[in-house]
Parts: sequence; C-alpha cells; structure tokens
Amino acid sequence: MDLFLTLDAGGTSTRAVVHDATGTCLGYAVGSGGNPTASGVETASATMRSTTAEALEHAGAQPKHVGHALAAMAGSTVRLAGVDDGLRALGVPVPLHLGSDIEAMFFSGTAALDGAALVSGTGAAAIVVTNGTTTARSDGRGWLLGDAGSGYWIAHHLVRAVTADLDHRGPRTALTDALLSAAGVASGRTDDKDALLDQLVSILYAIPTPGIARFAPLAFDLADSDAVAEDIVQTAAEGLADTVLALPSADRSAPLVVGGSVLFHQPGLRSLVAELLRGSGWTGPVNAVSDGTAGAMSMNLRSAGVVIDESSHARMLASLADVRTRS
Amino acid sequence: MDLFLTLDAGGTSTRAVVHDATGTCLGYAVGSGGNPTASGVETASATMRSTTAEALEHAGAQPKHVGHALAAMAGSTVRLAGVDDGLRALGVPVPLHLGSDIEAMFFSGTAALDGAALVSGTGAAAIVVTNGTTTARSDGRGWLLGDAGSGYWIAHHLVRAVTADLDHRGPRTALTDALLSAAGVASGRTDDKDALLDQLVSILYAIPTPGIARFAPLAFDLADSDAVAEDIVQTAAEGLADTVLALPSADRSAPLVVGGSVLFHQPGLRSLVAELLRGSGWTGPVNAVSDGTAGAMSMNLRSAGVVIDESSHARMLASLADVRTRS
Repeated sequence: MDLFLTLDAGGTSTRAVVHDATGTCLGYAVGSGGNPTASGVETASATMRSTTAEALEHAGAQPKHVGHALAAMAGSTVRLAGVDDGLRALGVPVPLHLGSDIEAMFFSGTAALDGAALVSGTGAAAIVVTNGTTTARSDGRGWLLGDAGSGYWIAHHLVRAVTADLDHRGPRTALTDALLSAAGVASGRTDDKDALLDQLVSILYAIPTPGIARFAPLAFDLADSDAVAEDIVQTAAEGLADTVLALPSADRSAPLVVGGSVLFHQPGLRSLVAELLRGSGWTGPVNAVSDGTAGAMSMNLRSAGVVIDESSHARMLASLADVRTRS
Repeated sequence: MDLFLTLDAGGTSTRAVVHDATGTCLGYAVGSGGNPTASGVETASATMRSTTAEALEHAGAQPKHVGHALAAMAGSTVRLAGVDDGLRALGVPVPLHLGSDIEAMFFSGTAALDGAALVSGTGAAAIVVTNGTTTARSDGRGWLLGDAGSGYWIAHHLVRAVTADLDHRGPRTALTDALLSAAGVASGRTDDKDALLDQLVSILYAIPTPGIARFAPLAFDLADSDAVAEDIVQTAAEGLADTVLALPSADRSAPLVVGGSVLFHQPGLRSLVAELLRGSGWTGPVNAVSDGTAGAMSMNLRSAGVVIDESSHARMLASLADVRTRS
C-alpha cells in the first residue's frame, strides 16, 4: 500500500486524513492545536503523532503504509526543526513535507493553479497563487502591525469601543452589555463605571495576546441592531477588501478563495467583502472554505505527480465530507 | 531638624527632593525608573533608597532628619507592600506616604485645590480634583483598552500606517522612511517590501508592550509636512480632548494642568488639545508641567498641615528649579 497522510495543523485544531492517490479518504481524526509557532514545536509534533495514529487506526492502516506525508501550517520552515519527530517516532517511513496553511486554504476552494486567497481568523492575510505557488502576499503582519479585519482586529476595536462607552468618552453601544457578560464581569452596581472598568481591565489584560479575538463574534451578533458594531464590521470588511486589492499581480477574473474562522462563520462579512471587491472590478468567483484540509490533500497528491482537475477536486471534497461524518 | 523627603517615582526616572516646611529645596537627586508596577517592588524600593541617599547627601542631611516622607507613583496602594523597605533600611524614621502620580502632576501646575489634570506619556488619563483629592477619572485604561492620544496610541497608529504603506494597503507616508531608519531596518533593496516588512516585524514584536511608544515623536516631527502624520496627531488631540470633556464633574473654569512626556514635549499637541477644549466651552487656564515633583512636594507639605497658596507655590517652583540646576 502507498497511502497519503495529510495534516492540516491550525492554531486551535489539527486535522489528519489518510487517503489514497485518487483522493478517496480512508481515515480521519481531529486533534488539538498543532501550529508549532502557537503551541511550540514539541506540542505540535506530539499532536501530529497522536492525530495521525488515530486517523491511521480509523483507516485500518499502519504507519509503514504511508508513502507520502504533508502538513500544512503557518510559519516558515526555518523554525520548524523537530516538528516531524512525532511522525518519525510513530514509524512513518517517509519525510514530512511542509506547506503553507493559506495555500492549502486556496486549494480547498479550487482545482485551479492560479487565483488568490484571503484568510481572516485570529489574523488576516491574502496571497496570490500563480502556477500553484505563492507569488505575492499582503498583510498577515500580526496583531500589532497589521491583520486588518481579522478576529483580533475586530475584537480590539470592540473592547476599545466598550471601554470608551463605559468611560463616557464614546457612543453608547449594546456591545458593552454583551462584552461584560461574555467576559464574566459581575454586573452589580452598573452606575459605578470605574468598578466595571477595573474588572474589565483585570480580565482582558490577563488574556495572552491575541486571545481577545474570541470576542469578535459579538460584533457580528449585534451588527444589524447597533451602530458601533455595524461600523466595526463595515471597517473590517473594507480592511479585508483593501488587503486583496493591494495584491499587485492578482488576476481579478481568477477565483478568490476566502476562509479562516471569521470569514467562514460570518456570511455577512463575506458578502460585504465580495461587494466591495465587485465594486473595484473583481470579477472572479468568491468561494468560501471551512479549512485547508482538502487543499493540503491536493498539495500532497500534486507533489506525488497526481493531476487534480475540477471533477477529481469535487470527488475529493465529497469523500472528505463523507469520512468526516463517519469519524 | 524636621525635613521633608519627597519622591516622584516615574517609569523612566525617580526624583528625590529634600526640602523644609517652607518648600525651600536643600537637596535633589535623580535615579532610574522607580515605578513598582513597571520595575517591580524590589527595584522600586532599591531605587528610592539610592536616590534618597543621594538627595540627603546633597542636602548635607541624614536619614534620621526626615520627618515627613511621601512618594507619588502610579498604581494602587494595595500592590505596594514592601515598597518602603528601602527607605526603612536607610534609616528614615517615618512611614512613607503614597500619593497618585497624576494628582502630583496637577499640584505641580497649580496651588488650587480644584481643577483637572490631563496626562499623556506612554499612557493617557485625566482626573478631576475636588478639594485636593481625585473625585473622577477618565481613560487611563492601558494600551489594549484605552490610553487614547498617548505615546503608545500614537506609535501604534504610526507603525500600522507604515506597515499599510509598505504593503500598498494604505497611503504613502514619510513616516515609513522615518520609522525604518529609527527602528534600524537595513534599507538595502527598497523594492522588496516583504523583506522590509519581515525586518520590521522582527524588530517591533521584540519590543515589550507598550515600548513602541518611543517612536511617537516621529509623528510630531512630520505632522507639518505629511498628511498621515498630521492625521495621527489631530486624532490623538481629539482623543485627549474627549478624555477631558468626559470628566463628569469638571468645573470648566478651573485650571487644567497638562503633562506627561508627550504633552510636555509637544507644544503643537498641547495647542490642538487646548483649542478643542476652548471650542467645547472650557474657559479655565491650561498649564503645562514637566513632572509631578513640585506637586508631590505640595502633597507632602499639605499632609503636614502646611498651607500652600499661589505665592508659596511659585517660591517652591523657583527653589526646585534652583536646586535642579545645582544638583
């Protein structure tokens, strides 16, 4: 047997799929966060090992049957020494190839080798893919310098708007009650703004950066009924559209794949971004994807010489959906 | 002898002054950062000890001659256990009273017991002082949640504007060359924006938060010639004016004392803030101060029952300026 092991290692979960050369999925498993820059190389390596073992068991296969292994993950390969120790210890007899997580997301959304991808999760970035590889990137500069329109960016604007509201420095917003409740601030005497702010300060500064991104969904929950929330979502959409439009070499008729936890779970944001792009002459299809697993499978198959076309891509997506239901 | 020891403990320097009950300064010394929340209680305590020893020597006095000791510093008193260990070990026979650094700044600028103070240094906050004590505060919620118009706020907007410029996501700005130079980014091939951005990311993420505030002066240097810099400065001024105007109980004819490294060193920002306040009906005088040392002296004297009026306040300022020249 010459099986394919494909890993999609994200900050909050790691997906492992065992498949054959036709893209038919035989085993699947989900583990905890396996991004070596977020979790550390040792944790990432251990998570990949356990998730792989589970996917192989699900497939009724052994580590020695793996003939091709690829992991898609954020971070440059220079920092990833030791990340394949877990797979080697498990007995996977082939080297682990590494690929870009955002390229994987692109290939989840299309069988094409040319186009662009936009991700907004905790961070945000866009790339141009030309002939199957990244040829330009925009943003993805992290919480301090960039990531315009990301979960962190949205949450940061949200928590500042709430602080300004409580301080009477900014407009009243329904985000305030929503955040105080979500962050676990004891309401009690709501007339004592300094007491509420002191609690909010204690709770939010204790969350390691950029963890406040977890509060971003509150902005979407209230965007239809609250002007401050609506403005944050609109400005996030403009930031994300600008990130795509800044790509110097993007073919505006090629597919744009959008994903990441924020863009995938917020169809309203996707519509706003797509509308802004259409208004700027973007004519290509906009496809949303939940993750980069199918794309990582494509990368793994292509690096073994397998040709992926639209129909094999569609069959692979269907097989992946099927194995996920069964896992 | 019944001398007064007054300390003004800031994040970057600690000032110690030995004076008598008339506010005549006898000895003065400057030490390193002595803010216990920034430097830790042990370091703060040791800095206060060494700076005090130097000021006493300058005054030709001994620790046992100190009859009244007060330190103005940021941070609540509950976190300050042990901060007076250094002075006790030195042989200062009286307890160390603690006062608010922003109240001290207020009393540096006026002999009045009522008014308001606005500080913009690394952070930013405003208070109302009523009958000599803080009765309301606005902002001062730190780099993540507030500090609108502070050095960190200005620098954060600046570094994001530079990143967006390099990424072609934002307007061209002269801040880019200024920041690349100030941050020590090797220019080299200026056409390779990703290489420049990778360097900028490495350098700026290595600076512990909120240390990027050090780059705030670049915005003021270029505000007259660069639209992006001008907009950052204007928005900072609006944030600071809003912080003052949000104070619920501020008497708009009472003195407003402004200080902190940003407001003290940037007269252009002070003018913009004063103009915005005048436009909103603020009629009281706006006095700029370099630090809270004279105000901490006032607090120390007043807690010993000494009455400070305009003429004794003026004499105290003159004596402090004189001892600083001689130290």
